[in-house]
Amino acid sequence: MSESTTTATANIGVVGLAVMGSNLARNLAGREGNTVAVFNRHPDRTRTLTAEHPEAGFVASESYDDFVASLARPRTAIILVKAGAPTDAVISELASRFEPGDIIVDGGNANFHDTIRREADLKASGIHFVGMGVSGGEEGALHGPSLMPGGTAQSYETLGPILRTIAAVAPDGEPCVTHVGTDGAGHFVKMVHNGIEYADMQLIAEAYDLIRRGTGKSPAEIADVFAEWNTGELESYLIEITAEVLRQVDAETGAPLVDVILDEAGAKGTGAWTVQNALDLGVPTSGIAEAVFARSLSSRRAQREAAADLPGPETEWKVDDVDGFIEDVRQALYASKIVAYSQGFDEIIAGAEQFGWDIHKGDIAKIWRAGCIIRARFLNRISDAYAEDPSLVALAVAPYFRDAITGGQAPWRRIVATAAQAGIPTPAFSSSLAYYDGLRADRLPAALIQGQRDFFGAHTYRRVDKPGVFHTLWSGDRSEITIESSN
Amino acid sequence: MSESTTTATANIGVVGLAVMGSNLARNLAGREGNTVAVFNRHPDRTRTLTAEHPEAGFVASESYDDFVASLARPRTAIILVKAGAPTDAVISELASRFEPGDIIVDGGNANFHDTIRREADLKASGIHFVGMGVSGGEEGALHGPSLMPGGTAQSYETLGPILRTIAAVAPDGEPCVTHVGTDGAGHFVKMVHNGIEYADMQLIAEAYDLIRRGTGKSPAEIADVFAEWNTGELESYLIEITAEVLRQVDAETGAPLVDVILDEAGAKGTGAWTVQNALDLGVPTSGIAEAVFARSLSSRRAQREAAADLPGPETEWKVDDVDGFIEDVRQALYASKIVAYSQGFDEIIAGAEQFGWDIHKGDIAKIWRAGCIIRARFLNRISDAYAEDPSLVALAVAPYFRDAITGGQAPWRRIVATAAQAGIPTPAFSSSLAYYDGLRADRLPAALIQGQRDFFGAHTYRRVDKPGVFHTLWSGDRSEITIESSN
Repeated sequence: MSESTTTATANIGVVGLAVMGSNLARNLAGREGNTVAVFNRHPDRTRTLTAEHPEAGFVASESYDDFVASLARPRTAIILVKAGAPTDAVISELASRFEPGDIIVDGGNANFHDTIRREADLKASGIHFVGMGVSGGEEGALHGPSLMPGGTAQSYETLGPILRTIAAVAPDGEPCVTHVGTDGAGHFVKMVHNGIEYADMQLIAEAYDLIRRGTGKSPAEIADVFAEWNTGELESYLIEITAEVLRQVDAETGAPLVDVILDEAGAKGTGAWTVQNALDLGVPTSGIAEAVFARSLSSRRAQREAAADLPGPETEWKVDDVDGFIEDVRQALYASKIVAYSQGFDEIIAGAEQFGWDIHKGDIAKIWRAGCIIRARFLNRISDAYAEDPSLVALAVAPYFRDAITGGQAPWRRIVATAAQAGIPTPAFSSSLAYYDGLRADRLPAALIQGQRDFFGAHTYRRVDKPGVFHTLWSGDRSEITIESSN
Repeated sequence: MSESTTTATANIGVVGLAVMGSNLARNLAGREGNTVAVFNRHPDRTRTLTAEHPEAGFVASESYDDFVASLARPRTAIILVKAGAPTDAVISELASRFEPGDIIVDGGNANFHDTIRREADLKASGIHFVGMGVSGGEEGALHGPSLMPGGTAQSYETLGPILRTIAAVAPDGEPCVTHVGTDGAGHFVKMVHNGIEYADMQLIAEAYDLIRRGTGKSPAEIADVFAEWNTGELESYLIEITAEVLRQVDAETGAPLVDVILDEAGAKGTGAWTVQNALDLGVPTSGIAEAVFARSLSSRRAQREAAADLPGPETEWKVDDVDGFIEDVRQALYASKIVAYSQGFDEIIAGAEQFGWDIHKGDIAKIWRAGCIIRARFLNRISDAYAEDPSLVALAVAPYFRDAITGGQAPWRRIVATAAQAGIPTPAFSSSLAYYDGLRADRLPAALIQGQRDFFGAHTYRRVDKPGVFHTLWSGDRSEITIESSN
């Protein structure tokens, strides 16, 4: 490394100054005690940022040497560049200049498997690598995101106090950041956050569609419904912005904007990752899967056009008791939401077990209470549930949620049944109810599936009345043989 | 390679003599024109096989050198060992002894990504590597499996005639084998086959559960229902064996075996792969996903025990018109099955596009008509549909299936609605109906999701009335700006 004349004055640095990086750097600079070093591959961007924000007092560098030299020890730098190869490139530049005890934080949307790999690669050098989930988008980065750092506990001693200054603040005054767990834990939890977000958005979309098609209310009128819901137990950022989006009028046509927007939903991949990893972990996350698939279905234009004249129900559907129906939808939404979060937390529990992370579920619920997209009053209930019983095996069985579902169950069933009869697609509502009924079932027809598997593939089965593994000689005399005599 | 005195007399060899390999070797040996070389890592197994089946005339070897020397050119060997490292080890032993033009076939349950990698690795050596899906279990391997070979067209010139002698034979006399496509195409299609199998089995399980709980019929009585269904359009191996399993009585307790089997369904992973790859490809395979998740839910014993007292519907459910109800279930099963296969073929189409395979969908349906687990009368309909319109965009819109759904739609809706109200989990029935209603929807609430995404993440949207990409300045004056002026 070439000698640099720069003085090490910054306690934190940011590499990558696109909107997320710039905003996070400005957020850091605005807090007492921080001096922020900034660097971007294209010096123009660095110059623009420092020129536009002289109040930030950035320590700007135009080379990695200078940037690293501008950082006080332990050097701590947050990377906010594209996931994948660009992130690896920056890590490599920093790692070749950093020393044992220094900290590299990846605040991008990395796949947690990459984070685990990167942490392992840097371990021998003594450099701490921290994968950190950052939620809240551009606005969150600037005013207060929800932060989900992984990495070593030691790195969090340095990083924690800095992150606490910039994180969103929950209603009880707690900053929305915690040490999630080691290596990839932070990016894993951020991934599940996004998966839950997919489910939450799909559920809201189904609620809107049901009300629109069932009652004929206009988007602006439905905006009022959501605004009203936002004063109760559904209070959340997503419900709030749904009202805003539905109220928006397109200036060009005078129509509700939601009717002008093409109904093909995009996706950035983290929802799919959540489901793919849930499949690896053997955790049913059907609500999230249905949400991801609903988006992909919406974008299959050729199929939708070919299928547009497929028949629906013969009788026209009309809701008589409009207010009663809307209340039913609200309760169905709340019950389905409980299932979606329950499934998401199951995935976090399974991931923690698989990868050896000591994740405090209640703390995860707490740091999602502000800053992030799924922030909601509801998360207090989840954190309470885990505080009461840290080894809770499923959110849906915690007393508060059990009561909520008990109360909302009849409307939930009515809505799913109505949608099926009326021809309104409610994949996430239906799937959540089916999951709930499966979870509480005394006996599942999985026994028949085991019988089929034993028949065609000799996959064996277990019995309800004694330990062991058994096989029926289906193509023989159909007697049962014992494969293993104990579990 | 050391010199061997063995004469090259075998036109085909089999490596790996566990049940699948032994049975496939015996199948090969029993057909006119084949001389079969056999090899196993443990010579004992080879000796046992040759001793037990002198009629096969196996050419047995106890070293790779002798095995390879016993094969006539082009040397052709089928590997049937565990997927993963054991397969790589055998490939490496053969490849170091094979010559350009020789053919290595992997008949195990490989992940198609591994198959693509292996084919690419061997390409430079001039050795053909063929990943081949083999379906039908042990019985199929012996008496006639459904075979799904990938690899080069050139290798199929040698391999095809041999495989045609051992494959299952469809009712019209055609052997159930075709050259699926290059490199990993065979294993990919086998994976989707298994995914469809998961969905099919889950749908059958739901049908059984509904009839059992709705009518109180005994498993033996329900066996009669399935046996009856097997004479109609549902005719298939899985329906047939369902009747067999339901009729089975446990010798020890005198109870129906299905009531003695523990209701926790196992899985070997190919169902999960199917969904994970569908997520990569952006293809909704919700029926398969629900089936995989239903199995994992069934195995979550601790959660199920904790949730066992969660409340269900308040009123007891009883079916009045038993025959009418059973007919409704049958029609719901058939309609849901159409959706499951439609989704599976969508994944094959997307995979073919993504990986550059020239897959003939109709031929895939044809080679699944016998030998494999999902063999069914139904597959003739699928092959007809693709014969009529090779560029069919969705199975559900082909005239035959459209008619079937039109006829079955009202019962399908009734069953899904009834299950929701009665508290019976029907994740696959419900999901398939929701998919159907989504597919045919004129407008989806995906437009609202795009609005939300634009609000919190500036993800932009498209408009229904003009090309381009747009963004509303949600935190500004809420005017719309054009990000791109054309598509």
